[in-house]
Amino acid sequence: MHSLIIGGAGFIGSNLTDYLLNEGNKVTIIDNLSRGSTNNLNYYLKNNNLNFINRDVSNLQNCKLAFLDASRDISIDEVWHLAANSDIPAGVSNPDIDLKDTFLTTFNILICMKELSIKIINFASSSAIYGDFKDVIINEDIGPLLPISNYGAMKLASEAQISAASESFLQRANIFRFPNVVGVPATHGVILDFVQKLKRNINKLEVLGDGSQCKSYLHVSDLIDAMFVIRKKPSNSKIMLVNIGPLDMGVNVKWIAEQVVSKISPNAKIIYGIGNKGWVGDVPKFNYSTNKLQSFGWAPKLNSKDAILLSINQIINENQ
Amino acid sequence: MHSLIIGGAGFIGSNLTDYLLNEGNKVTIIDNLSRGSTNNLNYYLKNNNLNFINRDVSNLQNCKLAFLDASRDISIDEVWHLAANSDIPAGVSNPDIDLKDTFLTTFNILICMKELSIKIINFASSSAIYGDFKDVIINEDIGPLLPISNYGAMKLASEAQISAASESFLQRANIFRFPNVVGVPATHGVILDFVQKLKRNINKLEVLGDGSQCKSYLHVSDLIDAMFVIRKKPSNSKIMLVNIGPLDMGVNVKWIAEQVVSKISPNAKIIYGIGNKGWVGDVPKFNYSTNKLQSFGWAPKLNSKDAILLSINQIINENQ
Repeated sequence: MHSLIIGGAGFIGSNLTDYLLNEGNKVTIIDNLSRGSTNNLNYYLKNNNLNFINRDVSNLQNCKLAFLDASRDISIDEVWHLAANSDIPAGVSNPDIDLKDTFLTTFNILICMKELSIKIINFASSSAIYGDFKDVIINEDIGPLLPISNYGAMKLASEAQISAASESFLQRANIFRFPNVVGVPATHGVILDFVQKLKRNINKLEVLGDGSQCKSYLHVSDLIDAMFVIRKKPSNSKIMLVNIGPLDMGVNVKWIAEQVVSKISPNAKIIYGIGNKGWVGDVPKFNYSTNKLQSFGWAPKLNSKDAILLSINQIINENQ
Repeated sequence: MHSLIIGGAGFIGSNLTDYLLNEGNKVTIIDNLSRGSTNNLNYYLKNNNLNFINRDVSNLQNCKLAFLDASRDISIDEVWHLAANSDIPAGVSNPDIDLKDTFLTTFNILICMKELSIKIINFASSSAIYGDFKDVIINEDIGPLLPISNYGAMKLASEAQISAASESFLQRANIFRFPNVVGVPATHGVILDFVQKLKRNINKLEVLGDGSQCKSYLHVSDLIDAMFVIRKKPSNSKIMLVNIGPLDMGVNVKWIAEQVVSKISPNAKIIYGIGNKGWVGDVPKFNYSTNKLQSFGWAPKLNSKDAILLSINQIINENQ
């Protein structure tokens, strides 16, 4: 099988590349290296089954050239679309970022897939499409969908465009609604933020918000395991739309801050901000149902706490 | 109050202009006249309370210039965003049309509203955002939202972007999920299509699909009445998202074809196609709940049948 990963040089993409190569696939990556890095792929670039193309698919012409290049020798069987803005606050202050990197990437990829008759897409959507449901349990059938960040809005726009394409030419669209994912190579996120802050000032850690924000976290290894289970699940529907996440209700930011501090600088003072939102567009609390995914027989190996603890160690090692 | 209507020269926009002027508002219309026409506004262009600006807001620079022009003398209190592609099949074959006319219009309008601190938007969304729920009753809280046309996808994308903007700067967003709307000045739709076909050939009427597609229809006068009720409804939420539609379950295409034929050419032969979809992206059956809107005390004056019958007369008159 020839798998094309858009955004394959990023955090999740580079992990996915590893898994797909291990499955015995030929893998082509398209990445503009704006957030990803070939450093994440150094080991694999020596693998004959891996091909890397440096292009920005948010530009249609570049996207077309990249797809032609990717399918020159062997036609593409499936697309994994992981390319997106990953800096949600940046997208809130400048909506162009998510329009371009989170949505137009999807829009252009679908045009190229139609032209080349590629009929399977695996799409990294996000729990951010749900917006703020407060204490309500969020399953896949809940509505209305009122995202509170431009990132969430453009992920929902991408889902919608994929849905319309499923009516017209796609055979199968796996839409994965990602939770907060942790692990390495970390490019953003709360743990990396804390580690870097403590590197700059060993004596204090300033936390956005009052630390009460509670979120669940999944380790990237479990995320990929879940995506593979969903991808192989037979279905009568062209669209397989599934929440991915741990089974627990998550941990709060205070606990994460304390764990990072205890590992790096146990005497550092943790200074909290005000309010239960870290930034505009942040969802403070989140009850994410993964019943559908569990019904497929999947369970994560690590709960939120264990995923965070493992990732703290991995990120500290990576940043030494 | 100074109301700005984007797409105010179109079918619904020109009717809305009438109502807003009658409310005593100052009205500015921005329209690129690609589907609308100043013919729809001839009467009102002599009204001192009406200002018309010919620009295409799918281009950000033009959108900014139009907003500056519109707010030069009197600041804008509310925006009505009715600009969109209205030819759904055209958008299915070329997704650029709905990207540009249905979504980027919304995206650019929100940028301009933020810059000018305009905090109220009234948005013409669509039942097309729901996709095909078969016999399930569609209320505002249903999910997942899997539109089957690019038009529906880009309306959902617009809702999502408005939702994110509500988190950041909007005070009130009224999102109206429109049903099929009939009346004059008709620019598209099944009645106009049938009338024009019979004008070209008085002996036969070819119908897309087998005629069994059942949809509900609302007359434009009832639509505007509903929007005004929703717009004036106090709410704790910044986003007021409401299905608008008649109370009945609708009529099928066969019945509409027979009514048009009986009015224009009683001996014409009606020739049906195959299948219960008129075109890719068409939703064959539709159970649309308007319970929320009814709870506000609203009821339409015309049911689907009466709305169709009135519109047939209006469209025939208009096309004579």
